Amino acid sequence: MDGGVNKLDEFVGPQARKQNPEHRVAVRCGDIKIGEGTFTVMAGPCAIESVDQAVETAKVVEEAGAKIFRASLFKPRTSPYSFQGIGPEGLPILQAVRTETKLLLETEVLSLKHLELLHDHVDMLRVGARGMRNYELLKEVGQTQKPLILKRGMSATLKDFLLAAEYVLVNGNEKVILCERGIRTFETYTRNTLDILAVPALKELTHLPIIVDPSHSAGRRSLVGPASKAGLAAGADGLLVEVHPNPDGALSDGDQALDLSAFLTLMDELRSLAAVMGKVV
Amino acid sequence: MDGGVNKLDEFVGPQARKQNPEHRVAVRCGDIKIGEGTFTVMAGPCAIESVDQAVETAKVVEEAGAKIFRASLFKPRTSPYSFQGIGPEGLPILQAVRTETKLLLETEVLSLKHLELLHDHVDMLRVGARGMRNYELLKEVGQTQKPLILKRGMSATLKDFLLAAEYVLVNGNEKVILCERGIRTFETYTRNTLDILAVPALKELTHLPIIVDPSHSAGRRSLVGPASKAGLAAGADGLLVEVHPNPDGALSDGDQALDLSAFLTLMDELRSLAAVMGKVV
Amino acid sequence: MDGGVNKLDEFVGPQARKQNPEHRVAVRCGDIKIGEGTFTVMAGPCAIESVDQAVETAKVVEEAGAKIFRASLFKPRTSPYSFQGIGPEGLPILQAVRTETKLLLETEVLSLKHLELLHDHVDMLRVGARGMRNYELLKEVGQTQKPLILKRGMSATLKDFLLAAEYVLVNGNEKVILCERGIRTFETYTRNTLDILAVPALKELTHLPIIVDPSHSAGRRSLVGPASKAGLAAGADGLLVEVHPNPDGALSDGDQALDLSAFLTLMDELRSLAAVMGKVV
Amino acid sequence: MDGGVNKLDEFVGPQARKQNPEHRVAVRCGDIKIGEGTFTVMAGPCAIESVDQAVETAKVVEEAGAKIFRASLFKPRTSPYSFQGIGPEGLPILQAVRTETKLLLETEVLSLKHLELLHDHVDMLRVGARGMRNYELLKEVGQTQKPLILKRGMSATLKDFLLAAEYVLVNGNEKVILCERGIRTFETYTRNTLDILAVPALKELTHLPIIVDPSHSAGRRSLVGPASKAGLAAGADGLLVEVHPNPDGALSDGDQALDLSAFLTLMDELRSLAAVMGKVV
Repeated sequence: MDGGVNKLDEFVGPQARKQNPEHRVAVRCGDIKIGEGTFTVMAGPCAIESVDQAVETAKVVEEAGAKIFRASLFKPRTSPYSFQGIGPEGLPILQAVRTETKLLLETEVLSLKHLELLHDHVDMLRVGARGMRNYELLKEVGQTQKPLILKRGMSATLKDFLLAAEYVLVNGNEKVILCERGIRTFETYTRNTLDILAVPALKELTHLPIIVDPSHSAGRRSLVGPASKAGLAAGADGLLVEVHPNPDGALSDGDQALDLSAFLTLMDELRSLAAVMGKVV
Repeated sequence: MDGGVNKLDEFVGPQARKQNPEHRVAVRCGDIKIGEGTFTVMAGPCAIESVDQAVETAKVVEEAGAKIFRASLFKPRTSPYSFQGIGPEGLPILQAVRTETKLLLETEVLSLKHLELLHDHVDMLRVGARGMRNYELLKEVGQTQKPLILKRGMSATLKDFLLAAEYVLVNGNEKVILCERGIRTFETYTRNTLDILAVPALKELTHLPIIVDPSHSAGRRSLVGPASKAGLAAGADGLLVEVHPNPDGALSDGDQALDLSAFLTLMDELRSLAAVMGKVV
Repeated sequence: MDGGVNKLDEFVGPQARKQNPEHRVAVRCGDIKIGEGTFTVMAGPCAIESVDQAVETAKVVEEAGAKIFRASLFKPRTSPYSFQGIGPEGLPILQAVRTETKLLLETEVLSLKHLELLHDHVDMLRVGARGMRNYELLKEVGQTQKPLILKRGMSATLKDFLLAAEYVLVNGNEKVILCERGIRTFETYTRNTLDILAVPALKELTHLPIIVDPSHSAGRRSLVGPASKAGLAAGADGLLVEVHPNPDGALSDGDQALDLSAFLTLMDELRSLAAVMGKVV
Repeated sequence: MDGGVNKLDEFVGPQARKQNPEHRVAVRCGDIKIGEGTFTVMAGPCAIESVDQAVETAKVVEEAGAKIFRASLFKPRTSPYSFQGIGPEGLPILQAVRTETKLLLETEVLSLKHLELLHDHVDMLRVGARGMRNYELLKEVGQTQKPLILKRGMSATLKDFLLAAEYVLVNGNEKVILCERGIRTFETYTRNTLDILAVPALKELTHLPIIVDPSHSAGRRSLVGPASKAGLAAGADGLLVEVHPNPDGALSDGDQALDLSAFLTLMDELRSLAAVMGKVV
């Protein structure tokens, strides 16, 4: 508990173990870095729906100061009858965002097929909460050199989470960014329970950058702002936040998306707070 | 809550919805059926380790009256440094079990690759707790006609569980058997918390057969017997239970495996109890 | 874990520790015993509402073979606006039940005031799930010689539960009966998650009798029967079950109460099952 | 969910319901107020151990800018063999703290006896997580006019929590301060899971002030600072934090106590952050 090497050995794999407590290692992606005193905001809609929706959102996201665009073509949905994502038809939309902005692109992969399809079109991959225990997929991502956002599973302990990261690291991909997105508990007012102390806890245990997903944890847009600020105050290296030009018309998860105006306001608030925390948004 | 059609519509997908409350539909596998008054015991080691281990166990399992042999070649392990299963080298071992016994074979698939490799060598597939939210895999299994044991995810509500089954059913494979294997809670004495009331609850909601995995829920062999009997008494259609000729030497999960003698005793106890419950083991 | 003395020392207090694994100690209450091969059914309404309701229920409960009448005058309710129990006005009703039946009486105490008021009018006390961590109350009950049903708190580990029992035992009252009544988890189909493996787990750890409350765990009357049978099959020493002559008109918890006819049927089923388990209802 | 009156009616009692969303009502205690733009830090040891320990801590707490001294004479401990608090012998120690500092005094009550004993010696009462469901005690506190810190139970939903507050409010005491202190989940790295989004969620639902207990949620002193800052950033009105002159020698909960130097540093950090949040520590 108080950090003897043997106990860390039990808790965290050798690859994820904090290499140097004084110097935080950053994950580089294109010309930006995640970690090392930056607070990186990644934003965009839950799902890509159309070229207009994507480009409109991306422009505001860029104007607000975010660096990375959340661009999901495939959605793992609890019900097979829910919208499953735009799929391969979304590839030209990604290209349109690249043309219209300088944002880097981040997307979710649910299977090896998706990985093969999307690898060359995006800058960063994501394995979501439902995929965190899909170790076969993590092994495949481990054989690429794409930065990966690995989200914590709904019922994953910090130990489980770090060992899932280890599947990527030990296969050769060192660019893993951990994402706390809430765990499942008995509380139902929020969609998940944001385990805010996972942020400083993981900082004690590993050198990997940690970001927070305020949208999936809160499940309500009124709580996304407080969740984001709490993440920054707790020491996170960034956010993955859902933004939509018309949340009430979104094809998925509209309840938790910020509209463009609310996102601009949030970014201003985060800049003020980051200054006190010694970080740059 | 008390079963109006509309409420069921919200809770359970149209495919999984109980078709006929009076007549339980069985899933047929080879010459046996799961459901409809039978109590089907599926048993075997956590992982196939060698031809001797597999054949010795299978013979006892058959002698004891089990009908299906648990034969896992691939293991999803929390740590990448743990034994990951014997892999494709285990295929001849499956053949040896077929030669030496009349047991049907059941195995876990973690990816499309595994599904393609194993499909023609086994009688029944399994998607484990870690795979329950791997909807891309469930879609693929839905396109086969192999009976599938779908285990409940660690943090899956009954609604999540039934909607995961729906991914298989709606893709054309009607042979889904649900398996309660414990959920993750704050209690640590057991490996998971066996949600025994999931059995009668699912019986209210769906026509699909329900079995119990006493081994992964208990995590300790001393509790496997009571868990098995409780499952039968609560109305389950069968068990998936871990048996090993030398549990203390097992390559995985030995703490929760019964030895061959304990399994024979358990089967006798189950036969007595099943008679009172109006079922045949 | 496998029962070394030192590990038990950490887990379970010296008073609750299993004294003799071969010989189960019973708690005696009047002329009956709980434990040692008996399966004791305690039944009655969630709350005493009127003399007619109480006496009608008690007569059926007695006819069905139960030995102890659940007779709650005070109810701890989540909302202050819900029915809080009939209170001291119920004392003559308890007397009426004594006159009309030979049942022993069991009741809940929420405070020292209740304990003082009720002590001489009942045969057995109960501290409910909400009171399990009210250690000041447990100390007071420990200074009486009344048998006590101690229910597990909603978020209590087995260790917490056994240490709460220790507060009673170490103060001099050895007549503690543990009651598993479900824990709070993310699942909402049932009111609580019945932790059925707590029954054999506690049997490993302590000599105290263990009963199951199928009503509060299930929260739906359709699941009370399976919960009761699972409890018996898992090794419990008895049940605490809610029965009401008109569940839909009950002032509290009607959804989970059996009507009189359903209770008679359940008792018949339990007798058949108990015979196989080597127990007498 | 989006705040219609009827839905709030279901979720939160009429007394706790947010009276005026624009104007936060403060709870006054002596010459200070909790809420309305202040961030009130309450600090002190887990338990009062001696006059020296108490006075030394209180002086540093006051110097650092805290306004209220945490002064517990009675401790609800999981085990009856753990230190149960100094008890009535601590009353002169409270007097010594009053003589040596201008701090207000806050203390926990576990029963009516404690309430009667302590009422005239302290400025603020506390009912802890274990007492949140002790409604008989809450009714008694409701008949006083002492400000009350009501801590959330380990397994209490926000609805349960607000309805527990309602027991105090409806009995006539309007001075209730809610305290988020973590809930019990499957994660074991922290003692409890700090549900940080409970802070803004409760702000949506009620006019009552909300504070955070970073010590009991974290369970490790290394995480107390991040937990405190996250609480402030999420909108809390204050903190209840454990401070001890010699944490490693504390009679209870030393692992989670800050030493005096760490507390001074934390207070400086909180002042900087509060300025950005528009609050005064």
